[in-house]
Amino acid sequence: MRNIEFNLGIQDIATYIPPARIDNLAQGQRHDVDDDFVLQKIGARSLPRLAVDETVTSACRQAFEKLLEKSSVKADEVECIVVCTQNPDRGGIPHTSALVQAAINAPESTACFDVGLGCSGYVYCLQLIAAFMQMHGMRKGLLFTCDPYSKIIDSDDKNTSLLFGDAATVTLISDAPKLVSRHAKFSTRGAGGEALTKKDGKLFMNGRAVFNFALTDIPQQVNEVIKESGVNKNEIDLFLLHQGSKFMLENTIKRIGGIVERTPIDLESTGNTVSSSIPVLLEKYINADEVGTVLMSGFGVGLSWATVIYTKPVSV
Amino acid sequence: MRNIEFNLGIQDIATYIPPARIDNLAQGQRHDVDDDFVLQKIGARSLPRLAVDETVTSACRQAFEKLLEKSSVKADEVECIVVCTQNPDRGGIPHTSALVQAAINAPESTACFDVGLGCSGYVYCLQLIAAFMQMHGMRKGLLFTCDPYSKIIDSDDKNTSLLFGDAATVTLISDAPKLVSRHAKFSTRGAGGEALTKKDGKLFMNGRAVFNFALTDIPQQVNEVIKESGVNKNEIDLFLLHQGSKFMLENTIKRIGGIVERTPIDLESTGNTVSSSIPVLLEKYINADEVGTVLMSGFGVGLSWATVIYTKPVSV
Repeated sequence: MRNIEFNLGIQDIATYIPPARIDNLAQGQRHDVDDDFVLQKIGARSLPRLAVDETVTSACRQAFEKLLEKSSVKADEVECIVVCTQNPDRGGIPHTSALVQAAINAPESTACFDVGLGCSGYVYCLQLIAAFMQMHGMRKGLLFTCDPYSKIIDSDDKNTSLLFGDAATVTLISDAPKLVSRHAKFSTRGAGGEALTKKDGKLFMNGRAVFNFALTDIPQQVNEVIKESGVNKNEIDLFLLHQGSKFMLENTIKRIGGIVERTPIDLESTGNTVSSSIPVLLEKYINADEVGTVLMSGFGVGLSWATVIYTKPVSV
Repeated sequence: MRNIEFNLGIQDIATYIPPARIDNLAQGQRHDVDDDFVLQKIGARSLPRLAVDETVTSACRQAFEKLLEKSSVKADEVECIVVCTQNPDRGGIPHTSALVQAAINAPESTACFDVGLGCSGYVYCLQLIAAFMQMHGMRKGLLFTCDPYSKIIDSDDKNTSLLFGDAATVTLISDAPKLVSRHAKFSTRGAGGEALTKKDGKLFMNGRAVFNFALTDIPQQVNEVIKESGVNKNEIDLFLLHQGSKFMLENTIKRIGGIVERTPIDLESTGNTVSSSIPVLLEKYINADEVGTVLMSGFGVGLSWATVIYTKPVSV
C-alpha cells in the first residue's frame, strides 16, 4: 500500500536552543556518575534549559523569529500552526498553538492545534500538518516542536536528569518544498508505555526497556520503510534518528546496518530534546546540495515509533 | 479555495455516557442559582461524571465496546487512533491514544496520536484523521473524544460546575462512509484565550466573553462556510452546533438565521461535554434517511472555532 503523492513539504527549519545550560559533567558527579559515562554513554556535555520565565509559547516565538531571519515567510501568510508537545503551557487549556498564533501575530484564519506525542512526534506531525493542509488547500504552515522535559524531571533521578535538554524548533511547511514525503510507517505499543511515563507529576523512565525497544523495533521499521518505499538503501544520503542517547544510537545504527557514515550522532550540546531532536539536526543539513534523500525515525514515549523517507520534489 | 475531494468519512459513531450523575438542580440550589436558570439558561438537569476509578482510556474503551455492538469493525482492522482531549490520562505521558491502542487490542501497526483541542476539537479531528489516513492509504480509523472537565472543575465555581458533563465518543472513519467532508473552515484567536483557561490546575471561565464570541464569530463562520461550499442553506438537513449552554445556543442559532427547526438543542441530560457534544448528537441522526447534509460547528477554548459541511458520498 503506497502513500499518495504530495506537493507540500519542508521548506525550511529554524531552531531556538535556550542559552541557559546545565554542566552535565558536574551534574554527573553529584550523582556519582563518572565523566566517561556522561560523555560516552549519554553523550551530552551540557544541557540547555528554559529559564523560569520562558514558556513553550515564548520558545516557539523565538524559533519563529529565527525563521524570519532566514526565510521570506511572513506571519500574515500562515494558515496552519501545529505545536507538538507533551508539556503545554497552562496545562494545555487553551492549546499552546493558539497562544503561539497570538504571540507571532498570525491571522485569525489560522487553523491551530496541539499534538501530544513525544520522541516520535516530529515524524508524525510532519505528515499530519501536510495532509491537513493539502486537504484544505493551505500553502504555508508552521510545525513547532517544544517539549521542555526539564519541567517534569526530578533532579535527583539520574536516569532522566542527565539525559534531557530543552529546545524549540519550527519547520516551514509550504508549497515550495525542498523535501517531500515519500513513504512513512507508524507503530504503537501502549502496553509498553510504562517504560516512559509521568507519575505524580514527574517523569519516570525504565532505561533498559527503552534501550531494548530501540534496538529491536527501530531497525526493523527502518528497513521495512526502505523496502516498501522502493528507494535503494544506498541512495539515502542521510539518516536522522531520534537522538536519545549516544550509546543507544550507536547500537541502533549498528543493528540497522550499513549506515554509520550517513547517520549523525550529535547531542553533545543539547542532550535528548524529545520531538525537537530530529528537526535540530535536519536544520544543519537541509540546505546541503548533496542531501536529496533523508530518512527520519523518531521513537520513544508511547511506546511509539515512526519512520519516514523524504526526497526532493520532482521538478515541474 | 476549495477543499480537495475525499473518499474517507464517517461510517458510524458510538457514545459512552457515564452512569454516575450529579443532580444539577440540587447543585444549583447550593450555589443559590434557581431551577429556572439551571433549566432554561444552562439547559442541563443532570451532569454525567466519570467515577473515580474511570479514566479517559477506560471511557474510550467503553465507547469502543458500544461501537462493536453496532458495527462490523474489528479491533485488528484499526490502522489509526486519535484521542481528542485536554485532560489526558497520566498527564499525557504516554499519550492516551497509545493507552487506548492497548486497551482495545488494536494492532501495533496502529498510528496513534493525541490532539489537544477543546470544543472545536471534533470538527478539527474529523478532518485531521481523514487527511492523515488518506495520505497513508489507511482504511479504518477511530476518532475518540473524551474530555472529563470534572477533573479540573472547582465545585465552588458556579460558572463552570453547573455547565460541564463527562462523556466519551468514538467515530469510525472508513472507506465505506455515510458522510464525507465537503468544505471546512478554521479560526483561532489566541489573544482571547484567557476567556477559558486553566489556572492553578482549575478551569476558569469568563462566561460573558465566551457568550459574545459565540454570538459574533460563529454565525459569521457558519454562513461563510455555507457560501464557500456551494451548498444551498436550505439543503442542509441538520445543523449540529457545539452544545455550550441552552441560552448561548438559542441566541447563536437566532443570529445564524433560518435554521431553528433544523438545529437541535439537546444537553438536558449531558451538559456541555466539550469535544464530545457534536458526536453525541450526530450519533442520534447519522442513520436517519432524511439526513444527507450536515453542518457541524465547534467553538470554545482557544479561542478556537471550526465549521464543516458533510454530505453523503457520491455513489460509485
